[in-house]
Amino acid sequence: MKQIIARKRDGYALTSEEIMQVVSLYTQGKVPDYQAAAWLMACFLKGLNEEETLALTEAMAASGEQLDLSSIPEPTVDKHSTGGVGDKISLVLVPLLAAGGAHIAKMSGRGLGFTGGTVDKLESIPNFRTDLSKAEILAQVKAIGGCLVGQSEGLVPADKKLYALRDATATVESVPLIASSIMSKKLACGAKTILLDVKCGSGSFMSTQEQAQALAQALIEIGRRAGRNMTAVISDMNQPLGRTVGNAIEAREAIETLTPGLPKDSRFLELCLALAAQTFTACRLTTTLEEGEQKAKELLKSGSALEKFRQMVEAQGGDTRVVDDLSRLPSAPVQQAVLVHQAGWITRIDSRAVAEAAADLGAGRQTKEDAIDPAVGIEVFKHKGDTAQPGEPLFMIHARTESAAQQAEARLRTAFELSEQPVAADPVIITRSG
Amino acid sequence: MKQIIARKRDGYALTSEEIMQVVSLYTQGKVPDYQAAAWLMACFLKGLNEEETLALTEAMAASGEQLDLSSIPEPTVDKHSTGGVGDKISLVLVPLLAAGGAHIAKMSGRGLGFTGGTVDKLESIPNFRTDLSKAEILAQVKAIGGCLVGQSEGLVPADKKLYALRDATATVESVPLIASSIMSKKLACGAKTILLDVKCGSGSFMSTQEQAQALAQALIEIGRRAGRNMTAVISDMNQPLGRTVGNAIEAREAIETLTPGLPKDSRFLELCLALAAQTFTACRLTTTLEEGEQKAKELLKSGSALEKFRQMVEAQGGDTRVVDDLSRLPSAPVQQAVLVHQAGWITRIDSRAVAEAAADLGAGRQTKEDAIDPAVGIEVFKHKGDTAQPGEPLFMIHARTESAAQQAEARLRTAFELSEQPVAADPVIITRSG
Repeated sequence: MKQIIARKRDGYALTSEEIMQVVSLYTQGKVPDYQAAAWLMACFLKGLNEEETLALTEAMAASGEQLDLSSIPEPTVDKHSTGGVGDKISLVLVPLLAAGGAHIAKMSGRGLGFTGGTVDKLESIPNFRTDLSKAEILAQVKAIGGCLVGQSEGLVPADKKLYALRDATATVESVPLIASSIMSKKLACGAKTILLDVKCGSGSFMSTQEQAQALAQALIEIGRRAGRNMTAVISDMNQPLGRTVGNAIEAREAIETLTPGLPKDSRFLELCLALAAQTFTACRLTTTLEEGEQKAKELLKSGSALEKFRQMVEAQGGDTRVVDDLSRLPSAPVQQAVLVHQAGWITRIDSRAVAEAAADLGAGRQTKEDAIDPAVGIEVFKHKGDTAQPGEPLFMIHARTESAAQQAEARLRTAFELSEQPVAADPVIITRSG
Repeated sequence: MKQIIARKRDGYALTSEEIMQVVSLYTQGKVPDYQAAAWLMACFLKGLNEEETLALTEAMAASGEQLDLSSIPEPTVDKHSTGGVGDKISLVLVPLLAAGGAHIAKMSGRGLGFTGGTVDKLESIPNFRTDLSKAEILAQVKAIGGCLVGQSEGLVPADKKLYALRDATATVESVPLIASSIMSKKLACGAKTILLDVKCGSGSFMSTQEQAQALAQALIEIGRRAGRNMTAVISDMNQPLGRTVGNAIEAREAIETLTPGLPKDSRFLELCLALAAQTFTACRLTTTLEEGEQKAKELLKSGSALEKFRQMVEAQGGDTRVVDDLSRLPSAPVQQAVLVHQAGWITRIDSRAVAEAAADLGAGRQTKEDAIDPAVGIEVFKHKGDTAQPGEPLFMIHARTESAAQQAEARLRTAFELSEQPVAADPVIITRSG
């Protein structure tokens, strides 16, 4: 191990066997944390080339349980978002893709820090089970094409152990280390086609477009070298996605987006359609992005996507009455609007600040053990470029108590800016690739 | 701690307070090994500037016991060698400096790996005690000007803990980390004037002159910033120093060098005189190096230095009869010469190979817990540039058994080279500074 650390320290590329050895011995507890920490810092500062990154990814993917999709017919697809504020995409996209003929066993995480988690949002639907066994997952995907579950405990133990160590040793923000961590989970989940939604902006881990593109490129490279179809979108996260930040209120917005005839946030809908089009085309269910987008629109309009969502809720034990009656979702006792005091154009809605305000209300957790409050959160009525008049509501705070609502309002007052001059809207899709 | 790691990772200079905090919390066990390991790798790869190196040195020096020399009159001097093969300099230099009016409480280490240790060499003198208490050290230096002891257990605990971690994480070979480790011990020992003997060549940690000079410069810089008089010599370690490599046989050579009228190795004597001259001049006992060298020569010639050595042996409980009767030192039962087979000039005597052969005979230890055999070792009769005739002995092996001697001979046969063309001798002193 000392020699491997020294070789990386001196800038040499490690062999796949060396990387395999580090990952396997560390996971088994045969390499101590302090040696792994020194190795991670050397990797952080000296970098990993594409072969090394692939070797690290594959070694982590192979370190635990894997999902064997060989009994599921193609196209098998999977999706990863690098995480953002108001990101309820999976709740819409998974039933949409399944309704369109793709097979998707989507594993998601819980929220931590300012980032929400798809599992938390799903669990705001009464009785919805996210802890399916491998056999249940495979059976459900075979039967109805899709499932939305929590990440299996036994998946990629090497990544879990290395990630915790990176978190404690200031070695998180490295593109090859982030990319191998993300892709190890995707490789272990077995789908042939992988869609990436790389977020860019203040409410995400990549604050500039250059960083987001570098990460997308690294993820695509690993996937292609591992024989997967890769497709990616880089999307804006400088303002919250859609109109809601929380758990039940995000589930509500997702169901509204799936339901024909209900009002929808146009930026959120645009991103859902684009991601569906990319995936349909990457897995060859459609031949062009235009065709893919048309297919996605029809699946929403016909109610097929909503019907698929209802099947998934039913299969996973959830209360399907929620789908037709959104008032059955948990709701918060206190609702307090934040009004605009002057006329103007919205120049900024800081997604990080909104997310932190929502987390403080109880929608997020600071440590993995914290409980969350499904009902609380923040509605966001405006986007950058919209006009506002005095007395119009900009946010609606859903809080457990009056005092929590007061605190959130104070915070939200500094989370936006108005201009007397018109301001252009920002596109939700920054670039696409693959 | 994470922030401090991240700042060093990103190439920022740390404040003295931050470095103090790392060292103090790590020594107290409040920072885990893995965070310290990541920090050390970041320091290794991003470097430490002179202020940071001084802060690290002072923090380590302050982490445990220190020797308070305020009751000892000036000049107080100390000496450090970076370690080599056949390096018995301290056994000659400490009595020589004390005989010349300096006060020196010299702490030394034990041998490890291929490097011998002054403490092991001293302990080949029957009953010689190297484990004096602080009070005994101060009393002896006051009374007779010098002592030669082992490093006190309570000295620089931070350096001990960090060094062990560096050894396990491939973060040893960094000039600022090596320099701060060395100087922390010197600062903790309190002398105003510090002499450095930085070794350069195959039998030392610095294999090139550039590396040795960079280390010397870093050591001098730390010492000067900490208010000490610094003086340094870079000396050759491509071949063994003097004519002996072992323990009792090195003690014997040191006593021969101190004894008027006995034959001496000219390179070893030259280095002893040069180091004494540098020290006498740096602590202002003499005004020029020439005067310093003259003073050292007279102290040897008059027997004053030998007399001081005898006083030290007596004060430390050793058998002073050894000084006049070298046959009282331990001797090995098997003595086997390695003869030259062809005529020529010596082009190379590999000090590393000789040291490893001596260690294998039992003169060295692989782990701190190993016992050593004081009697065994290797005499080296020739230096680079000397002529050799067939049948002349090049080495004399002092071994415990015949088979150990056979093994050593096989090894030593590949440890030297002869040329049919004349070869120039290498000077023992490469450069001086300060």
